[in-house]
Amino acid sequence: MHEVHDNIELGKKILEENDHIASHNREKFAEKKLYVVNLMGSPGSGKTSLLEKTIAALKDRKIGIIEGDLEGDDDRRRVEAAGAAQSVQINTAGACHLLATQVGHAFEHIEDGTIDLLFIENVGNLVCPADFDLGENAKVAVIGVTEGADKPTKYPLMFRKAEVLILNKMDILEQSGCSIEALKENIRKVNPEATVIELSSRTGEGVDKWLDWLQERA
Amino acid sequence: MHEVHDNIELGKKILEENDHIASHNREKFAEKKLYVVNLMGSPGSGKTSLLEKTIAALKDRKIGIIEGDLEGDDDRRRVEAAGAAQSVQINTAGACHLLATQVGHAFEHIEDGTIDLLFIENVGNLVCPADFDLGENAKVAVIGVTEGADKPTKYPLMFRKAEVLILNKMDILEQSGCSIEALKENIRKVNPEATVIELSSRTGEGVDKWLDWLQERA
Repeated sequence: MHEVHDNIELGKKILEENDHIASHNREKFAEKKLYVVNLMGSPGSGKTSLLEKTIAALKDRKIGIIEGDLEGDDDRRRVEAAGAAQSVQINTAGACHLLATQVGHAFEHIEDGTIDLLFIENVGNLVCPADFDLGENAKVAVIGVTEGADKPTKYPLMFRKAEVLILNKMDILEQSGCSIEALKENIRKVNPEATVIELSSRTGEGVDKWLDWLQERA
Repeated sequence: MHEVHDNIELGKKILEENDHIASHNREKFAEKKLYVVNLMGSPGSGKTSLLEKTIAALKDRKIGIIEGDLEGDDDRRRVEAAGAAQSVQINTAGACHLLATQVGHAFEHIEDGTIDLLFIENVGNLVCPADFDLGENAKVAVIGVTEGADKPTKYPLMFRKAEVLILNKMDILEQSGCSIEALKENIRKVNPEATVIELSSRTGEGVDKWLDWLQERA
């Protein structure tokens, strides 16, 4: 019992410290007039594909990407190939989410004036990243419809914290066996305020709605 | 720096304590002559569907399930409806993986002699559960081919720790756009020893290979 209590106290301390550093990040981003999106979702939900499509569509924008991965820089190479103006890799060495301090350090590698929009692609995980503020303007979660209609009520924190929920892989909705009505009903149960966008980051169908949302803000 | 160091030390301490409790669980399971599988994988990879198919196929076995979820007991209801002899729900209240101590307590709810095979369905997460021994005989990871071919090298710990890698959703492989050859090549890079089983927990195709693996051991 004591052990559990200690861990909860330490958990709180870690979150408080993270929130503190996140607010510093937020000030820095505001100073540079940068709109910052924290992109989250399960492994393979299509976060990087959506970034590729976004970069390709917004050719007049200078897009920076901070990539979070356990190991490697596959996704950073992908967004760079897609035309990102700047890309920085964070390797978490096994940790399951990004911390504000890692993002702050990564941001130091981006020179002033080289970007006008910043995406942070978090580690693929539908749980922990939701808890860690990075200083972003908006939390956006990407959900593959292949993950099933029951995810909102099973992973409620992520679905509550994200203001935009992107339902991806709509091109294989029928084959996936997922009921889109049940999925949206479950989303309404946990976050009735969320903006829900259905799209396919592979075919590009529906991506315009996402770009509209983004360009109204950034 | 000091803060990071403290967290690493504490992380080690948590893992050591968990390993200690896991070894107690392992002794208890061995005493009862129970084979125990720790089933892991991303949200929506098809862990519960595979359990449903497994329970339905092995009608002569008394299968117990310990379900790990952030909230709710949807999956416990599903495996009970499928015919599980016993099912116990653990709610982690936001935590992204099961701990050996939670499994130990859950196991106390299963009466002696009521089961002869035990599955622990971990929280949907391709990262953290890999680090936490629960006292199981085998770690099995379920990967949806819809998650993409690059997952083994991006989430190497899970792919290294699991002795069986189940490539699920083979019925929609073509539509998913995933190259099964690339996926298997990436698996070989991180864990050449793994048993790789391709199946569809929806259609049942290939499930016999999983049942064969299981019945050779349990």
